[in-house]
Formats: sequence, C-alpha cells, structure tokens
Amino acid sequence: MSPDEIRILLDQVREGTRPTAEAHRALVAALRAAPLGDLGFAKVDHHRATRQGFPEVVLGLGKTPDQIASIAAAIAGRGHPLLVTRADEAAWQAVHALLPEAEYHQQARAITLKREVPRGRGAVAVASAGTSDIPVAEEAAITAELMGNDVVRLYDVGVAGIHRILRERERLESARVIVVVAGMEGALPSVVAGMVDVPVIAVPTSVGYGASFGGIAALLGMLNSCANGVSVVNIDNGFGAGCIASMINHL
Amino acid sequence: MSPDEIRILLDQVREGTRPTAEAHRALVAALRAAPLGDLGFAKVDHHRATRQGFPEVVLGLGKTPDQIASIAAAIAGRGHPLLVTRADEAAWQAVHALLPEAEYHQQARAITLKREVPRGRGAVAVASAGTSDIPVAEEAAITAELMGNDVVRLYDVGVAGIHRILRERERLESARVIVVVAGMEGALPSVVAGMVDVPVIAVPTSVGYGASFGGIAALLGMLNSCANGVSVVNIDNGFGAGCIASMINHL
Amino acid sequence: MSPDEIRILLDQVREGTRPTAEAHRALVAALRAAPLGDLGFAKVDHHRATRQGFPEVVLGLGKTPDQIASIAAAIAGRGHPLLVTRADEAAWQAVHALLPEAEYHQQARAITLKREVPRGRGAVAVASAGTSDIPVAEEAAITAELMGNDVVRLYDVGVAGIHRILRERERLESARVIVVVAGMEGALPSVVAGMVDVPVIAVPTSVGYGASFGGIAALLGMLNSCANGVSVVNIDNGFGAGCIASMINHL
Amino acid sequence: MSPDEIRILLDQVREGTRPTAEAHRALVAALRAAPLGDLGFAKVDHHRATRQGFPEVVLGLGKTPDQIASIAAAIAGRGHPLLVTRADEAAWQAVHALLPEAEYHQQARAITLKREVPRGRGAVAVASAGTSDIPVAEEAAITAELMGNDVVRLYDVGVAGIHRILRERERLESARVIVVVAGMEGALPSVVAGMVDVPVIAVPTSVGYGASFGGIAALLGMLNSCANGVSVVNIDNGFGAGCIASMINHL
Amino acid sequence: MSPDEIRILLDQVREGTRPTAEAHRALVAALRAAPLGDLGFAKVDHHRATRQGFPEVVLGLGKTPDQIASIAAAIAGRGHPLLVTRADEAAWQAVHALLPEAEYHQQARAITLKREVPRGRGAVAVASAGTSDIPVAEEAAITAELMGNDVVRLYDVGVAGIHRILRERERLESARVIVVVAGMEGALPSVVAGMVDVPVIAVPTSVGYGASFGGIAALLGMLNSCANGVSVVNIDNGFGAGCIASMINHL
Amino acid sequence: MSPDEIRILLDQVREGTRPTAEAHRALVAALRAAPLGDLGFAKVDHHRATRQGFPEVVLGLGKTPDQIASIAAAIAGRGHPLLVTRADEAAWQAVHALLPEAEYHQQARAITLKREVPRGRGAVAVASAGTSDIPVAEEAAITAELMGNDVVRLYDVGVAGIHRILRERERLESARVIVVVAGMEGALPSVVAGMVDVPVIAVPTSVGYGASFGGIAALLGMLNSCANGVSVVNIDNGFGAGCIASMINHL
Amino acid sequence: MSPDEIRILLDQVREGTRPTAEAHRALVAALRAAPLGDLGFAKVDHHRATRQGFPEVVLGLGKTPDQIASIAAAIAGRGHPLLVTRADEAAWQAVHALLPEAEYHQQARAITLKREVPRGRGAVAVASAGTSDIPVAEEAAITAELMGNDVVRLYDVGVAGIHRILRERERLESARVIVVVAGMEGALPSVVAGMVDVPVIAVPTSVGYGASFGGIAALLGMLNSCANGVSVVNIDNGFGAGCIASMINHL
Amino acid sequence: MSPDEIRILLDQVREGTRPTAEAHRALVAALRAAPLGDLGFAKVDHHRATRQGFPEVVLGLGKTPDQIASIAAAIAGRGHPLLVTRADEAAWQAVHALLPEAEYHQQARAITLKREVPRGRGAVAVASAGTSDIPVAEEAAITAELMGNDVVRLYDVGVAGIHRILRERERLESARVIVVVAGMEGALPSVVAGMVDVPVIAVPTSVGYGASFGGIAALLGMLNSCANGVSVVNIDNGFGAGCIASMINHL
Repeated sequence: MSPDEIRILLDQVREGTRPTAEAHRALVAALRAAPLGDLGFAKVDHHRATRQGFPEVVLGLGKTPDQIASIAAAIAGRGHPLLVTRADEAAWQAVHALLPEAEYHQQARAITLKREVPRGRGAVAVASAGTSDIPVAEEAAITAELMGNDVVRLYDVGVAGIHRILRERERLESARVIVVVAGMEGALPSVVAGMVDVPVIAVPTSVGYGASFGGIAALLGMLNSCANGVSVVNIDNGFGAGCIASMINHL
Repeated sequence: MSPDEIRILLDQVREGTRPTAEAHRALVAALRAAPLGDLGFAKVDHHRATRQGFPEVVLGLGKTPDQIASIAAAIAGRGHPLLVTRADEAAWQAVHALLPEAEYHQQARAITLKREVPRGRGAVAVASAGTSDIPVAEEAAITAELMGNDVVRLYDVGVAGIHRILRERERLESARVIVVVAGMEGALPSVVAGMVDVPVIAVPTSVGYGASFGGIAALLGMLNSCANGVSVVNIDNGFGAGCIASMINHL
Repeated sequence: MSPDEIRILLDQVREGTRPTAEAHRALVAALRAAPLGDLGFAKVDHHRATRQGFPEVVLGLGKTPDQIASIAAAIAGRGHPLLVTRADEAAWQAVHALLPEAEYHQQARAITLKREVPRGRGAVAVASAGTSDIPVAEEAAITAELMGNDVVRLYDVGVAGIHRILRERERLESARVIVVVAGMEGALPSVVAGMVDVPVIAVPTSVGYGASFGGIAALLGMLNSCANGVSVVNIDNGFGAGCIASMINHL
Repeated sequence: MSPDEIRILLDQVREGTRPTAEAHRALVAALRAAPLGDLGFAKVDHHRATRQGFPEVVLGLGKTPDQIASIAAAIAGRGHPLLVTRADEAAWQAVHALLPEAEYHQQARAITLKREVPRGRGAVAVASAGTSDIPVAEEAAITAELMGNDVVRLYDVGVAGIHRILRERERLESARVIVVVAGMEGALPSVVAGMVDVPVIAVPTSVGYGASFGGIAALLGMLNSCANGVSVVNIDNGFGAGCIASMINHL
Repeated sequence: MSPDEIRILLDQVREGTRPTAEAHRALVAALRAAPLGDLGFAKVDHHRATRQGFPEVVLGLGKTPDQIASIAAAIAGRGHPLLVTRADEAAWQAVHALLPEAEYHQQARAITLKREVPRGRGAVAVASAGTSDIPVAEEAAITAELMGNDVVRLYDVGVAGIHRILRERERLESARVIVVVAGMEGALPSVVAGMVDVPVIAVPTSVGYGASFGGIAALLGMLNSCANGVSVVNIDNGFGAGCIASMINHL
Repeated sequence: MSPDEIRILLDQVREGTRPTAEAHRALVAALRAAPLGDLGFAKVDHHRATRQGFPEVVLGLGKTPDQIASIAAAIAGRGHPLLVTRADEAAWQAVHALLPEAEYHQQARAITLKREVPRGRGAVAVASAGTSDIPVAEEAAITAELMGNDVVRLYDVGVAGIHRILRERERLESARVIVVVAGMEGALPSVVAGMVDVPVIAVPTSVGYGASFGGIAALLGMLNSCANGVSVVNIDNGFGAGCIASMINHL
Repeated sequence: MSPDEIRILLDQVREGTRPTAEAHRALVAALRAAPLGDLGFAKVDHHRATRQGFPEVVLGLGKTPDQIASIAAAIAGRGHPLLVTRADEAAWQAVHALLPEAEYHQQARAITLKREVPRGRGAVAVASAGTSDIPVAEEAAITAELMGNDVVRLYDVGVAGIHRILRERERLESARVIVVVAGMEGALPSVVAGMVDVPVIAVPTSVGYGASFGGIAALLGMLNSCANGVSVVNIDNGFGAGCIASMINHL
Repeated sequence: MSPDEIRILLDQVREGTRPTAEAHRALVAALRAAPLGDLGFAKVDHHRATRQGFPEVVLGLGKTPDQIASIAAAIAGRGHPLLVTRADEAAWQAVHALLPEAEYHQQARAITLKREVPRGRGAVAVASAGTSDIPVAEEAAITAELMGNDVVRLYDVGVAGIHRILRERERLESARVIVVVAGMEGALPSVVAGMVDVPVIAVPTSVGYGASFGGIAALLGMLNSCANGVSVVNIDNGFGAGCIASMINHL
C-alpha cells in the first residue's frame, strides 16, 4: 500500500464513502505484509551507489565471457561505475566489444569503466611486499581509484630489506588508510601498523610454495599481528580491501 | 501501531477530530518502521512452541547455575516445556530449588520439565554405537520425547559386531526417522541408512582418542557416507538431532 | 532354498518319498546359510524403488562415457527412473545415443530419464545464495523432481542483501522441507531455519576462493548453525540433499 | 647527539674553540649512527597517545598479578589512560591496591583507568550474536569507550531470529563504524554489512563446541563474507576490534 | 526355529498330523526372520576367545571405577582372560577389591588377569624409541603376553643414536612380528622394517610437543614410511598393536 | 677384509712370514671399518628376494617412461620378479619394447613380470567397497599374486548394502589375511574385522569429493576403527597392503 | 645532508657567514630525516654479495620467460653470480639467448652463471633419501657451489636400507655442514644428525602421495626430530638450505 | 673381540697352539657380528661431549622429580655438564638435594651444572619479540652458555615497534649466529635476517591465542620467511636452537 493509496483510503474514510471496518482490515493487512523492500533496504543499496561511487562488482571467477559481458553492459546502462574482477583476456574481449570505453588492467585482471563519483577525503596507500603480490595490490588500488580515492602505491617494500619500507614513512603517513598486501610470512602489515596511526587493511596472498599452503601462512601471520590497527580480509581479496579502504576514506 | 490504535485513528478521521494529513503521516511512518515482530516472525516462534511442543532450550554450557535457574523459571512461568542441555549437578540443584517438578537426566546432563504438547505421528528411533556414546544419544532421545515423540532406543549396536544392528531391523523399520549416534570411525549411520528408507540424522560424538581428533574422524565419515538419506549435525549435538527428528515426525 | 523348493520338500516328506533325516539336514543348512538377500534386504531396495520413485543413481565422476552409458541403459531397461550425476558433455552424448528419451541438464551436469513414481505430499523448496551455487542447487532440484516432488526454486537470495530472502517468506513456508545451498560463509541456512519450522537440509558448496578452502568454511558454518532444524550433507552434494528432502516429503 | 649538543658544537666552531675537522667528524658519525628513536618513531608513539587517547594496553594473559600491577602503576604514573585485558580477579585485586581509582569490568575481564582523551567524531556500534559472545563484545566496547568514543551496544541479535537485527537498523545506521562479534557460524557480520555502508570489523569468538574448533568456523565464515566492507581480527580479539574502530572514528 | 523344532515339524508332516501348508508357512517365516546370531556370528566371537586366548577388553577411558570393576568381575566369572586398558589407580583399587588375583601394570596403566590360552607360534618383539614411549609399548607387550605370546622388549632404541637399534638386529630377527612404538618424528618403524622381513605394526605416540600435534607428526611419518611391511594403528593404541601382533603370531 | 684374506694372513702369521704386530694392526682396523654391508644387511635383502619371491618394486610416479623401462630391464636381468606401480600407458609401451614377456594390468596401472617364487601358506582376500576403489584393490591383489599368494577378490561389497559383505562370510573366513580397500567414509574394514579373526590391512582410497579431502576421511575412519585387528596403510597404497599381506601369509 | 655539505656548513658557521641558529636547525632536521639507506643497510647487501659470492637469486615461479631473461641480464651486467630457481625449459631458452655463457641444470631446474667468489672453508655435504628427492637436493648443491663451496653429494641413502647411509659416515664427517633432503616420512635428518656433530639443515620435499600431504608429513617429522642439531626450511626449498649451508661454511 | 683378544689369538696361531682354521672361524664371526658400538658411534658421542662441552640433556617433560634427580646425578657423576629442560619447582628441589652445586633458572625452567668446556669462537645472539617469549629465549641462551658460548641477549624487540630491533644492529652484527624467538605472527626472524649475513635460527613460540593455534602461525611464518638464512626448529624448542647455534659457533 503506497502513501498515495493510504491518502485515498483516509479521504474515503473521512468522507464516509468507505466503511471504517473495511479500511481497518486493509491497513492491518498492509502492515503485516509490508514488503521488506519498502523498508529502505533497496534504497540503501541505491544510496550507497550514488553517494560513494560504489561500483557494482562482477566476480569474473566461474562465469563465461558472454555472461560477464551482458552483466557488464546492464550495469553500464544504469550509469554506474563498473568493476569486473578476476577477468581473463577472453572476458575482456567480450566486454570490450559491448563497452568500447571500458579499460582492462592486465596485472590486476580487472575491467573498469569509470564514472564521476564522490571523492574520498584523503589518500589510500597500497603497499605490497614482493613483485608477485602486485596483481592483488593492483586489484585493491584500481578498486579504490574507481570508488573515487587518490591512491599512493608503494610496491616491493617487503620486510627482508627493512630499509625499503622505512624509507616510505612519509608517504605512509600521508594516507588516511593503508592496504598492505603480502604473501609468504605476511609480516609487512605488522611493521607498517607499528609506523603509523591509521587503520591497516591486511591482504594475504597465495604467493609462496610448500608450507605457505596457498596463503594460509600469511593469513595466520596477519590475524596474529602484534601491532594495533590491523584487520584482515580473505586471501587474494584485493577488491575487498580496496572497498573497505574507500569506505573509511569517505567517512 | 497496533490494530486497536489503527481503529481509533480511523474513527478519529471519520469523525473529523483528527486531520487527514496527520493521520496519513502516522500511518506511513508506521508502515516504514513496522517492527519485524509484527510481520509474523515472533508469531512463528509462538506458533511453533504451541503447535509442536517445541521447548525453549537453554544451552547450559558457560552459564552459572544461578543464570540457568532464573532463565528456566522464566520459561516455565510461560507454561512452555523446558529443556536445559549440558547441565551439571550444580545447575540441576539450582533449577530444582526453583522448579521442584523438573527432572534431571544424569547421563544426558539434561534438565526437563514436561508439558502437554502435540504428538508426533510415528516413532523416532535413536541408535548408538558404543556405551560411551549413550550420553549424546540420551540427549537426542530426551529432546525428542519432550517434543512429543515416542522414542525407540537401540544402544550398543556398533558395526564391529554387525549382527547387533542387523537384529534390530524390525525396530528400525518401525520408525519414521532415525537418529544415529557414533564416535570413533562413525560408520553406523551408513549401515543403518542402507537398511531402511527413512531419513537418518547422524550425530558424530567426541568419543575416541588420538586420530579421532575430538570427533572429526566420525564427522568426516558421516559426511562422506556412501548411503542415501544421511544428513549430519555438529559433534555431540544430540539436542539438534532430536529436534530435527521431531520436526520430521510432526510433518 | 526358495518357498517353492520348501513346498516340494514338505510334500516329499509327507508322501514318504524323502527321508525325514535328509529333509532335516537340508532345512537346517538352509537356515544357517540363508542368503541375506532372502532376509528382505534386497526387497527393501526394490520396495523403495517402486514405492518412492527412487531412481538408481550413477555417480558419473571417474567413469568413462561408455561405462556410464551401459549402466544407464541397464537401469532404463528395468523400467526405473534414471539419474546420472556429475555427467559431462561426452557422457551425455554416449547416453543419448542409447537412450534417446533421456534429458541432459547442463547446469546441474545431470542426465535424467523420468518415470511414473509416487508423488511426495507437499513441495520441496530449494534456495541458493549466489549464482555460482546454482549448479549444485539444480542437482538437488532435479533429483527431487525425478523422485516425484514439486520443487520451488528460490535462487540468488544470499544474506548480504537480507531483504531478498525475507521477501520469500511465504514461498518458504509453503514447503514441507527446504534445501539451502550456499558457498563462501554458508550463512543462509541459519537465516532460513530461523524463519520456518520445517527441516532444513544445508548443502555447502565449493564456491569461493582463498580461506573458503573448497567449501570447508561453508561446511563448518552450517554444522555450527545457531538455528534449530539444520542438518548438513557433504560439500557440493546436491543429489544427497534432494534425496533426503524427497524421503521427508514422502513420509 | 642531542639538539643541545649540536648547538654547543656549533658555538664552539663559530668561536674557533673547536677545529672544524673534528666537528665535521663528530657530526658525520652522529648522522650515520642516528639512533632510530630520534627519527620520530618514539614520538609517533607519544603523539598517538596524547592525540587519540590511545591507552597503553597490558595483555594480562600469562602475567602474574604482581607483574600486571606494577606495569599498570607505571602507566598510570605517566598520566595515560590504562587498559588491562584478560585480567582475572586476582589481577584486579593487585591493581586495585595500587590504583584505587581504577575500574574492573567483570564480564570483559578488563581493568580500566580513564583519562581525558580526544573524542571520536561519531559513534561506534558493537553488535553481538549470542549471550556467550558478550564478554568479547564488552572488551571491544570498553576499549572504544576508553579511547574516547561513544558506544552503541546491540547484544543478542544473532541471525537465527533475523528480525532481531533488522529491528536495529536505525541504531546501526547511526554509527560510523560497527564491530560485530559472533561465534558458532559467524554469520552476523555478513548480514550487518549488507544493511549499512560503513566499515564492519568482525570478531570471531571461541563460543561453540565440536566443529566450531575454538572459533575457526566463525573465523572462516567471516573471512569468506559475501558482503562488502567486512574485515576480520583474531578470535576473541575484542580489544583489537575496539582499537581499530576507534582509529576509524577519530579520522 | 531350532534344529529340534524342525525335526518335530517334519515328523508331524510325515505323520500327517500337521498340514503341509501350515508347515510351509512356518518354515518360510523362519527362513526370513533367521536371527543373525544363529548364522554363526556369535559363535565366531566365542570361538576366537577360546582358541586364541583373546581377552575381553575394557577401555577404562571415561568409565567410573565402579563400572570398570563390575564389568571386570563379570568377565572373570566367565573364565576368560581380562584386560582393562587406560586404568588409573582408583580403577585398580576397585577391581582389586573384587578380583584379588588380578595384576596392575602401573606404566601401562593396565589391569590383567591371566588364564591358560593357546600359545602363539613364535615371539612378538616390541621396540620403542624413547623412554616416554614406554607406557604405550608396555600396553602392547602386556596385551600380547596375555594373549599367549612370548614378548621380546627392545626399549630406548630411537634413531638419533642409530647404533642402538642396529645392535638389536638378532633379537629383531628372532620375532615373527614386530610392534614399533615411537613419538616425535616416528622414524623408527621405517628403520626396523628395512632390517627385517616380518610385518611391522607401527604405533605413533602422543609424546612430543609443539609441532608434534599430539602424535600427528609421528602418525604421518609412519603412514608415509618408505619401507615395505609397515602398517599403522591409532595414536597411543598399544592395545590394538599388541592384539594384531598376537593374531599374526597365532596364524 | 674377506674370509680368504684373513686365512692368508693367519697362514702368514703361523708361518712367521708376517709379524704379529702388523697382522694385529690390520685385523683391528678391519674390525673397526667393517663395511656395514658385510654385516648381513645386503644379504637380508637378497635372502628376502629369493625366499619370499619379493619383487623389486618401481614406483612409476614421477619417472619418465625411459627411466622406468631401463630400471625394469635391469631387474628382469637379475631373474627377479618385477612390479612397476603407477605406470601409465606410455610407461607400459616403453617396458613392453624391452621386456615382451611383461604384462600390463590397466585398472591397477601396474606392470608385472612373474617368476617362480615361494608360495604363501593360505589365501589373501582383497575386498573393496565401491567400483571406484577397484584400481587400488587390484594393485593390492596383483602385488600379492606376484609374491606367490592365492588371492580371493571380493569387490563392490560396501556397507551401504550390508547384505553384500555378509554374503561373503565364508570366502572371508577362508583367508589367512584380508586387505580391505575403501574410500568415502572407510567403514568396510570395521565391519569385516568384526566378522573374522585374522588380521585386516585397511587401505583408504582417495575416492570421494568434498569433505573426503582426498582420502583423509577414510584414513581417519580406519585409524579409529572400533574393531580389533585393523591396521592401516597410506591412502591409495594398494602395493603396501598387498606386500604386508604376503609377508603375513608367508609366515 | 652529505659529508661535503656538512663541511661547507661548518665553514660558514666558523666564518660567521651563516647564523648558528639556522645551521642548528638544518643539522637537527638532517638528523631527524636521515634516510635509513645511509645507515648502512644497502651497504650490507653490497658487502654480502662481494664478500661471500652471494648470488642475486630470481625465483622463476610465476614469471614469464621474458621477465626472467631481462632480470637475469641485468644481474649479469653487474658482474654478480646469477641463480634462477624453478626455471623451466622456456625460461632457459630465453636466458640462454641473452646470456650464452649461462648454464642450465635440468634436474634442479636452475640456471646459473658462475663468478669468482670467496671460497667456503670446508665442504658442504648434500644427502638425499630417494631418487625423486634429487631435484631438490641438486638445487641445494648448485646453490652452494655457486656461492663458493665444495659440495659432497650423497644421494639415494634413505633409511629403509639403513646400511646405505651408515656406509657414508666418513664422507658425512668430512663436511662442516650437511643438507639433508627427504620426502615421505622425512626420517633421514634424524639419523644423520645422530651420526655427526655438525649442523644439519633439513629440507622436506613434496615427494610422496596420500597422507604425505605435499610434504607436510616430512616437514613435521623434521621439526620433531629427536636428534640434536637439526633445523628445517620450507618444503622443496633447496635454495634456502644451500644458502644457509654456505653462510655457515663461510664463517 | 677386543684388540687384546686378537693379539692373544694371533700369538697362539704363531706359536701353533691354536689351529688356523679355528682362529679363522673366530675372526670371521667377530667381523660379521662386530657390535656397532665398536665401530666408533659411541666414541663419536663421547668425542662430542668432551670436545664441544655438549651437555647431556634431560627433557624434564613427563618425568617424575625422582627420575630426573637420579638421571641428573648420574650425569654429574661422569663429570659432564648437565642441562635439565622443562623442569618445574619440584624437579629442582629433587635435583638440588642431590647436587647442591646445580643452578635453577626459573624463567627458562632449566637446571644447569656448569663444567669447563671448549669455548665457541664468537658470540651467539638471542633476540626475542615479546616479554612472553622470554622463557623460550632464556632456554636457548642458557643452553648456549652451558655449551661454552658468549651470549648477547636482545629482548623485547618485536616488529610492531620496528625501531627497537633497528637500534640493535651493531649488537646483532657482533654475533656469529643469531637465535630469534617470536610468537604470534613470527615476523622477527625475517627482519633480523635481512639486517645481517650470519645464519638465523628461528624459534616459534606458543605465545598468542585464537588463530595462533599454539604456535602454528609463527611456525608457518618462519618457514615461509622471505629472507635468506633462516632455518626453523620446533615450537618452543629453545634448547634445540641454542644447541644448533653452539654447533655453528664451535666450527
């Protein structure tokens, strides 16, 4: 029952053209059955998209190029920014054919289509330990950029040569939130969090072999960080980290 | 806004003692903010309790005897059946002082207070492999009984002496649903499910040592059952199994 | 020794054409060696197939197309419904050549051949969280349909947008048993079980990456469900869940 | 070489009472050996403490009451806010004897001593699933309060009765960051994150039994959350979550 | 239906005092319902006990002293050898009061009561790596002795001083089957199996700390043995190994 | 120093052609440096091969066809029986070219070349649960046959249809040792061991999916067997089981 | 601020051409901001490379042939020794085209380019258990050789034939440090460490199947070694072990 | 056969008082049966003890105070240094009563009795991350000291305040080998190994909670270290690390 329908009903009651008992029954039924969507949930989704520049995200993993392309076209048609993660070359070809203005980020395996979105208040820093961690770091960086954030990239600053990250102290301190990406022992987030006083989002990667167990070693290292301010997302989840960083930077 | 309040509001609108615009505002707000409980969820809970004899359950684990006793008294005060699981002697003393009519089931470590509830349509069978599995089996059996089911107990029928369970075929076939409780290798549910054509709810127990890993071996065995009709609940979760069995038996 | 053979023997004894001692020896031996199949087990299998429409199921995993096709043809020859799970395109081609009336369900990777079977009493609902969970959900749905159940499909109702499942309350309540399929964190069964009072069969899927560990995260989530009425089957075991749901719906 | 020592050296050079070559040698050596502490790191620590009201935290686990009390007295002596986590009754007695103005929070097992600290900009919400999760939730809430944040507590809003959390939508939306505490299947953070557009810090708890594996099930569930905006801290790490939430709320 | 009953029935048929049809019905029913016990299974149990001296074993774990004592007395009453494993001092006191002729083996935590049993054909060797492994080794040795085997004990012959086991080659070669007990890395069975050509039963123990994970390291080491002839039982399962060794030695 | 050399030396000492002191030095040195091979270890290897018909085994996994073929030819050249496990079609072609009298067992992926070897005393039974377990069962059976044992095969006797294994009781009892192969929940060895009184060698297979974890579920089930007489080998290690069974059967 | 700049500043102070206060400010700022690199860290790296012959190592895993080749050429251009690990045939072709003097070690999958480097003081022994462990052993050996060490190779000396390693005692004792490579149960390091009194670096390999879990069994075995002097590196990390052995041998 | 016995035999042969054939038989038998201890292994043990000051170590875990004391007295009686690890107060009292000159190290839970032993060539550094790691670090330090090494202790230098370890660069560089002890994420060894060019022995500790899993997180972090020169020992194995460090320092 829409606000307009309620108004009409009330007018009828006031005018005596509709029995009170019947109006009562209709209103009680409407209250009971109130579709949840009307309670604001769908609006939250919409609100978020327009205020924060939150793109609609397509996880490319396990979808065919055709499926990805048609979803992407639908999103672009609504005027929203677009992000496809875990997109391979074939997916990119399919999307490119429908959306020539989209871009492909090969290292990050991401397809984007930028739109004007609200800007974050400061910068998001993205640091990564080794060169093999860069694809995940780029997924985080591209996600944050698409959502309206300035991104400072600090790559190849792993703890085995501790001077590399120490040299970047000023750039780290310039950020409002820092995404730290590392595989193997996953020690970089602890070191970074000890140098700054902003939140650190740690992303373990599946980089490594043997007892790295596809990223478990790095994940456990980060969950057990002895430094304050470190929270963790799933292994290789650059998108998730970029998204949280953007949320924080838009506060 | 309760049905009575809506009736008063409509009367006021009809009588002209309340402006339509104000009534409209109040009704739209009520619709938007409709407490979910009014949408039927709380009623579902209530409905379930009165129709199925579903007791309100208190997980005794990690609560003090005083806390358990006061919750139990509150439930009993509403006229509902009562079930406290994982209740030790001290909890029982505390509950007994407030509710003299309650019963304590030592093996199952459960406190119950029976009420008249709707009866299930057939019997629930509860089978267990070894004597050490009996406490969990009893938790399932007592739960099912409290919820209004006839329970057939088949204890100490583990697969190492296969003739023991084979002898019970008729009693197994007399049930509408079977709870099978086993630790160690957890093989009994597969054998039982191969003998009957009703659903089998498998309960792994933490009985065993070494590579039983506190019930993981039995849990994995049951999840990988080669027989049709086996679903599984958490380790030592006799209550959960008894509850599902009762749901099925009340269909 | 078949009933007919016993009759002949008794006739011979009565007529005196066979010595009592010899007949005695033969009967005692028959009792001792009574093939178990004669004790009713094989009949149970047969009974189940004819009364419930229980198909003979072929797990396609690890069989060659030729093996699958010849088993399928044998089953169809007995007039039973047929279900091949985990069947790829090649298996389908081989089966199709022998059984032109069989059907292939691409998403569920299942081959079916329907027969007249006893109908379940109500509906089986199959809900799934994400689009990637649909193949497993379809395996469950097709299994249940083949076994004579009406199936209500509720796809893409994951908990990240909680209003999606809330909107489906009525359709959920219309079912006698609900199969809930989810990967990643596997939270949907808890939410669904809190909304209804019928049994929920939870199916974890291997959908996800990183710390989903091929479905372990979802499996553990479901086993630890805080809601009553949830039991769990193996990862990706849509068939198992559909089969249990059908058993319950035929009670 | 302190700033004062440099000044004296420069005066000597200017006055000609110290040879330039010798002064040069001393300065170059000082530069090379510059103790890292002078480079600002220790100051960062100090800066953080005075600007954010960041308390010095003592992890009580594995320390004797005497050790805890003497560390606590030292911190209080510096005028900083104090937080002792995982403090049992004995530790509290020892601290109380030295610091009569300290407070003990029994559920959270935390000792605090408040000081005037900079206030966060909005509110921190702390939601928890079950009553057994409250100690961890309280650790988070008390941490955030001590660091200068208004805290909104939403307890016992687990997903098995989904209407409980839905009812709290307005209070959730009033927060700038939300800490969500849950054991068992750990599904609450996904549901909350789908309802709001602020960061969610998820805290798995060791509440549960059997296949909860001391919190692993909840941890995995949270890491695999299908909702955007969820990052995770260690099992039972209420302090860590409260600390990150405060950092975000002070941005 | 017993052989005697069948004889009477046949006599009646022959004499015409019982209708063939009725006799037919009775015999078919008897065949169908043949209690499994009559098929020889229970006899197997009995046969084993009397031929091999196989004791009836009571797993003391999780039973009260009174329960253990009454079961033990019942077994002794049947004239069978008795073995109680995992029996603490209190259990021993309770058994001793009822069965003064029983013995307690403190290291092995086992209670035994010997009987005349068939002797094994050769010797069983029991080797253990470290002094902490001796309780499990003793459980194996006592089990084998009680079952009628000569036992050769070779203790403290771990691989870190490889000359210790090499010196025992002759005694190892004198055995028909060898039980090898080891914790930590569990390497001893591989070395022993490479020195002899009889079966080796490997028993991992929970001796160790840290990454021994309560015996998992030793268990995995033994399962992956590069030597031929090694099979493995559960962690700390000295009884199981002794029992298998006796079976082999009685062949 | 060979026996002949010692004889010459002693002759020289007796004849006085060699100084005692020098002979003493030579003998003491020889004792100290005694090559281990001379102590009988290598002979043990040889002894085993000739007395038991123990083949020299080549694990084909991770070797090129050429490597396998040349090793196989070398073994055959010594007149020993040959067994290549995990051999694919290409390996077979390469071996066949050099050893035309060798045989290929496709299901077991094994190449054999038989020789006259000592016969075992009784039969080895090999039972397997499902059709997918047959390759591993065949590896065990072929290994045992090659080592001189009569093998009784009992395939497709899994516990989901318990009558199948019960029907085979006589054939099981005819064996001196039983290899039981099963994947999924791995329950068959417990049932078999409860039916017989000879040793059971359990072989878990990697057959299954999801929570079977590549055979871990079956492995744990077998290690936790509640039946006496079960020992376990590595996942899919048919060869190992066949080899142990042969050892036992040759005692 | 470079030494020269400090000298100029001091001259200006002495000459009175620069105010002391300003010079003071500049020096204090320089001290605070002293780039960490000036503190000697980068020099350490350089020093190590030239003194120890420490090669710059390229982990080939996850890099394209072109990437590997261009990095390799850059390293070679600096005159340093070169080591590319985990290099396949394609990578070798690409490197060979740019650096014709490089060598490819097929078994070790390593590319090297030797340079004159400081020699270690003694020998490094590399022992391996089975033939399948040789690739990892070769990676260790080649690493050590490239870093200036004499390497003694002892391959195929696994514990199943214990005489093989015992025969090598003298060669083992000739080394200053021993790398021991083993898969499956990983027992060889314990045996070797019990025979010598020099450090043993244990390398678990992923050789094995089933419950070897890709090297976990061997890893755990080595971590739990009962022998003194054993430390462990990651699974298959031959490079790491060779590198540590060289460090020790250069002390 | 001892050297003296050989001399007598040779004299008898030379004198003709013993037949050559009989002497031959005796010598060949002696060679074959040469007890391994005579081959030098026991001497190696002795050699190690006297040359390196290697103490005989008693692992106190799982031994009674009386057992520990009598073993300790026996060792001290041989004049060797003594080390008892994992010794509680009761063990210390028992040892102290017999060996008044022994010392107890409360934090390290170690009992020592020093003797004159060969000195290592340089210093051993022992660094630890947090105060809770000190007991394990002390076990390493005391072990190294007892074995004749100068020990440099660097405690509380964890990576969360990276300046703490950076300040200690000179002291780290002064050591020939460094033991690094850390719990939680275990990142310190990577940072240290990147700062020096000597071997780093990493010791994970069980310090932490939740997802530290009793030291597994730290263990995995160290095994996956991205820095060169790190090898790892078992969780909490301070003794093992101190022992290896001493071996290296005595080279």
